[in-house]
Amino acid sequence: MRENYREELESVINDLVSMTDLVKTAVIESSKALVNADLNIAEQVISNDSKIDAMHDDIEQRAFILLARQAPVAGELRTVVASMRMTFELARMGDLAAHVAKIARLRFPEKAVPDDLSANFNRMSELAVEMITTAMKTLADRDTAAALTLADEDEEMDMLRREQFKILLGDDWDYGVEAAVDVALLGRYYERIADHAVALGRRIILVLTGEAPEGENWPNTF
Amino acid sequence: MRENYREELESVINDLVSMTDLVKTAVIESSKALVNADLNIAEQVISNDSKIDAMHDDIEQRAFILLARQAPVAGELRTVVASMRMTFELARMGDLAAHVAKIARLRFPEKAVPDDLSANFNRMSELAVEMITTAMKTLADRDTAAALTLADEDEEMDMLRREQFKILLGDDWDYGVEAAVDVALLGRYYERIADHAVALGRRIILVLTGEAPEGENWPNTF
Repeated sequence: MRENYREELESVINDLVSMTDLVKTAVIESSKALVNADLNIAEQVISNDSKIDAMHDDIEQRAFILLARQAPVAGELRTVVASMRMTFELARMGDLAAHVAKIARLRFPEKAVPDDLSANFNRMSELAVEMITTAMKTLADRDTAAALTLADEDEEMDMLRREQFKILLGDDWDYGVEAAVDVALLGRYYERIADHAVALGRRIILVLTGEAPEGENWPNTF
Repeated sequence: MRENYREELESVINDLVSMTDLVKTAVIESSKALVNADLNIAEQVISNDSKIDAMHDDIEQRAFILLARQAPVAGELRTVVASMRMTFELARMGDLAAHVAKIARLRFPEKAVPDDLSANFNRMSELAVEMITTAMKTLADRDTAAALTLADEDEEMDMLRREQFKILLGDDWDYGVEAAVDVALLGRYYERIADHAVALGRRIILVLTGEAPEGENWPNTF
């Protein structure tokens, strides 16, 4: 039975890694839909989000059953509890990618993002994907070193968002109110994806080392 | 020992109720700061947020210790696991109230919200507070009936947000891009506070009845 239990815990972690992969795809595709005003891709991201949500429910349920039947202790208890939080962070990232896709769909056939801001959004998306990849690598390889870069990547994300506001609120903005509102909300969605990646990294480090990373660079992310 | 354990679980729940009270105050006060452009109140909400965050960390830690030392089963296990998620939902609501206060502070001495939208934001705030009160009552009295209204209240919140967009993107909007961006983000923050209140209600119902509420009115909120 204990052997099965270890196998089940391993399988929950493998599913978290697969779920991370789905979320990464959602972020990549939603950004493509956004920057290219591609309706088909937008629809795909939106409809795939229910698969991510179903994975959340499944992983949460299985982690709960592990707690109920096996009463794990020490590092394994930490892993089971963290897996519940991690699946939640991933589900939220998936939702946010779907929000990006919904704005792309709403403005189709126009582009929601003016060309002046394409480079900024491309970098935001690239950075979000890098952060998710980092978190996934940490989890899959049980190696915390990579996760330590997440805090710096999050800082770059914040800087990109400040740049957006500067452009939006500058004298040269002549795309009107609708585009400004879209950009502000889209920027918020990417910023939140990054926050969840940091929170994910924080949980993974906590599981692997028993201690959460501290310091100014690791804001207390929820 | 089992007696102490029950007491500790009861104490965790009481602290969740107290935390809900702090969050409710944060939402009430941040809305005051917003609608009246009151800098002192805004500063207070922002600085009090660290107290809410500290309560989160404390409750999460105590729930974890309960799992580790007592290996609770059945309804009690469900309660301990749910308390970890509930404290997270509350911490996020606190963060969002602080975000509202930060926008009020940023625009001071001006009001961030044009007078045309004051009534809309007052109702959003009132509704958010009602929803938090409902969730708290359900938790404190162990009575699920009240929580069933949360889904309807959430619908009204969504409607208020659609109204905001209609005003923002209408021909009569002459408050410029900055005010439009502020209103869009503020509306998003209130919408998210409401989402977390629904998620909180969902968890409480799950703990009390063993089943999550279903149906179209109860979207799968994360």
